[in-house]
Amino acid sequence: MIPGPFLLYIGDKRNPLDVKTSRGLATFRRADCIGELRDADCPVSLGLPRMDVREAAAKGARSLVLGIATSGGRMEEAMIPQVLAALDAGLDVVSGLHQHLASEPRIRERAETLGRQLIDVRAAPVNLKVGTGAPRAGRRVLTVGTDCAVGKMYTSIHLADALNASGVSARFRATGQTGVLIAGEGVVIDSVIADFISGAAEALSPAREDDVWDVIEGQGSLFNPSFAGVSLGLLHGAQPQALVMCHDPARPHMRGLPHMPVPDIAACIEENLRCARLTSPHAEFVGISINGSGLEPAAARDLIARIESELGLPCVDPVMTGMDAVVDRLLARFPAA
Amino acid sequence: MIPGPFLLYIGDKRNPLDVKTSRGLATFRRADCIGELRDADCPVSLGLPRMDVREAAAKGARSLVLGIATSGGRMEEAMIPQVLAALDAGLDVVSGLHQHLASEPRIRERAETLGRQLIDVRAAPVNLKVGTGAPRAGRRVLTVGTDCAVGKMYTSIHLADALNASGVSARFRATGQTGVLIAGEGVVIDSVIADFISGAAEALSPAREDDVWDVIEGQGSLFNPSFAGVSLGLLHGAQPQALVMCHDPARPHMRGLPHMPVPDIAACIEENLRCARLTSPHAEFVGISINGSGLEPAAARDLIARIESELGLPCVDPVMTGMDAVVDRLLARFPAA
Repeated sequence: MIPGPFLLYIGDKRNPLDVKTSRGLATFRRADCIGELRDADCPVSLGLPRMDVREAAAKGARSLVLGIATSGGRMEEAMIPQVLAALDAGLDVVSGLHQHLASEPRIRERAETLGRQLIDVRAAPVNLKVGTGAPRAGRRVLTVGTDCAVGKMYTSIHLADALNASGVSARFRATGQTGVLIAGEGVVIDSVIADFISGAAEALSPAREDDVWDVIEGQGSLFNPSFAGVSLGLLHGAQPQALVMCHDPARPHMRGLPHMPVPDIAACIEENLRCARLTSPHAEFVGISINGSGLEPAAARDLIARIESELGLPCVDPVMTGMDAVVDRLLARFPAA
Repeated sequence: MIPGPFLLYIGDKRNPLDVKTSRGLATFRRADCIGELRDADCPVSLGLPRMDVREAAAKGARSLVLGIATSGGRMEEAMIPQVLAALDAGLDVVSGLHQHLASEPRIRERAETLGRQLIDVRAAPVNLKVGTGAPRAGRRVLTVGTDCAVGKMYTSIHLADALNASGVSARFRATGQTGVLIAGEGVVIDSVIADFISGAAEALSPAREDDVWDVIEGQGSLFNPSFAGVSLGLLHGAQPQALVMCHDPARPHMRGLPHMPVPDIAACIEENLRCARLTSPHAEFVGISINGSGLEPAAARDLIARIESELGLPCVDPVMTGMDAVVDRLLARFPAA
């Protein structure tokens, strides 16, 4: 487990999407977040007090969380002195980067000398098995998306919460570094060896005979040429009866790929269904979840109404409308036994 | 580089597909293969002299190659004493398993004590980048398949050889452990971290301005629920103008998955085209390659004729008919500049 409370790293990041792991903790584990570590001229804030590592330690922080995205998941040179300072101040360090903390000799040596923990959330679990696609019992709903970072984790957490609030047991199954940090468990699926993607998804949501829903966090997009392999393996391994499509209407093109257009929601639904049916022959969509934070409220409401009318599925914004329309559809289509 | 000549491990394997890496070396690097190490009652042979490690060393072998498939790519207990004996006899040890040789303490310690090399072909390259799908120059043909182990590597090697024989420069780009052992280079794509599948494929076949064809070995199948994520990431990253579909007509069901039927060739072509076009908008098939070794010659000829007539594409068996019909189609569709 990750020792909280946390100091959240932002550094010099200027794109809000680049701090999405720090932001996820600030949103879903707010009580565990003491402050944010950011450069003086950094325009991005999570609304937490800005403080340095010593101040955070004095206020009770136990971990510095490198909750940011970097190119290829590598540690940036500017981060290293901050990590060393955190270790010196008495903090453990938690990272969601692909590059493991101990791969940097200065960090490894300092942590060993001081007896601090280095926790890599993306360290792949051992003893994974290759997936089989064999039919298994249980109720599973997977969030998928038109792109990465469009709200699949937010939608999944809100959907699990809404199901539980309506009296139907559900558990959030995390597949990304942010989700794993929030839930305290899960598998960072983009970090497993490629042969084991679907097997990791099968292990994350094993067969179960009760009526509990596993709400599985999706990753990437079948239309994102960087990560579609992860998305497809997760889709096959999750073997979901129900799917929710997530979409950010403000995205001008696929994230970081100006040459790639964002796919049409209907086309993305069709492609996900075609692929899902390899292991879940009757898979169906039970809703669409948009991230309307980049729109005026009236424009978001208009968009939701238009999507519902065009696609014949409930459309929600987890923050603005809540998840009830999707919960109703899910429970109507898949009543308890 | 892998030090030859080789002693090829077969052990107790009874399924010919389980020794495909050893078989690939015996086929394409025959002159480098001194013998095979197999149990006395093992029915599978590569047609090489059966010998133990000391005899192989005496005859000049420099490496024992664990060229077999095991469940999940793990080392089996029965292999460990044989590896230790090989190290004692003076051989290096080469493995295509996911589980690295040095992860077994007895093997690591013996190799260190004796100063022998442990070579894991599946060790992922460092410094991979995430793929982008950005259009790049160059001529690329990718083999894909209805399942794994249906002849994609054989087809790729034979196609590269046939192109070179016809005066068109081509190079085989290996993506599996057998191909990498045969070619002496490449990337074992199912062993990279999942986020880097398409990036690894992009790095393996970078932009080039000449007329040389990169003949890229495919992996798995979009219809195999164990490995489809690898297949999709490779398809996106390879960004092929041309595709060749590989198929084993004797396969009763997807390999190791009795609950999964083998897809129809036409459906598999359609699905590969749809997915390929995300990064290569004009991708097209230039042929079909069957593995007719499980059929009578007349039945294989009938099947080839029927596939050609039904699908309107050249159909070959690399061993029985050679690759000329596919080469002709490829060069007609993509003439040199």
